[in-house]
Amino acid sequence: MSTFADPQSLSHKELEEGTIFAPRFDTHGLVTAVAVDARSREVLMVAHMNADALARTLETGEAHYYSRSRGKLWRKGETSGEVQKLVEVRTDCDQDAILLVVEQTGRGAACHTGRVSCFYRRVAPDGTLADAGVQRLFDPKDVYGS
Amino acid sequence: MSTFADPQSLSHKELEEGTIFAPRFDTHGLVTAVAVDARSREVLMVAHMNADALARTLETGEAHYYSRSRGKLWRKGETSGEVQKLVEVRTDCDQDAILLVVEQTGRGAACHTGRVSCFYRRVAPDGTLADAGVQRLFDPKDVYGS
Repeated sequence: MSTFADPQSLSHKELEEGTIFAPRFDTHGLVTAVAVDARSREVLMVAHMNADALARTLETGEAHYYSRSRGKLWRKGETSGEVQKLVEVRTDCDQDAILLVVEQTGRGAACHTGRVSCFYRRVAPDGTLADAGVQRLFDPKDVYGS
Repeated sequence: MSTFADPQSLSHKELEEGTIFAPRFDTHGLVTAVAVDARSREVLMVAHMNADALARTLETGEAHYYSRSRGKLWRKGETSGEVQKLVEVRTDCDQDAILLVVEQTGRGAACHTGRVSCFYRRVAPDGTLADAGVQRLFDPKDVYGS
């Protein structure tokens, strides 16, 4: 398994302007990951990665996350077939977030609800949620059986 | 101060398909927030919001975050002038992440390093970080004095 440089070993300048990849995992061992579609540039989902998920993502070229609810590594698409192929991986200034630019394969639905993106509801002026018009490409009952 | 519905009071279906906005703040009282540029659709930054930051964002129409490093509410642009005006706010399937579609005002640089986006480095095939060609619009020394 790959390991990453320890961000504590870097100066502030090295962390923000340098060439050493030293992801700043939080106290739970996680970084935030945002996946965007390489073609449409839409934000598909936000999830988390531990070091193992990040290493496997880089090694295999397919997005892996850490499921906090299930407490385990999760290869995106392992059940649904909605695998995310990496086009580019970026990190941010303080290296506590990862941006995955992906080709969303399968039906093209990143969300387990069958929608293209998990961000299918907008906050309306009255504070309620309204449909944002994000396309639904499958019925989760057909895919997950529940 | 506004309060939000308690996600625990909702069924799984209500949380994921309903119209009640019930942000799932984590054990630290935070949700992840991703800001994207309304025009370019580029991901500008990833940060965190507590309930107060989220409420003020919705009330004022300008992005507010919670700075974990400084331990306080942070009106984006309060020092730099790089205020983010809301165009749309979305939430995701399980309501633990917020997507802000914004007009990045000021010089147009969301990152404190003076760059358009915080995601200015990509992970190269050899595992080091390489410049991703994100434009730098100001020198932080001129803006923050350090």
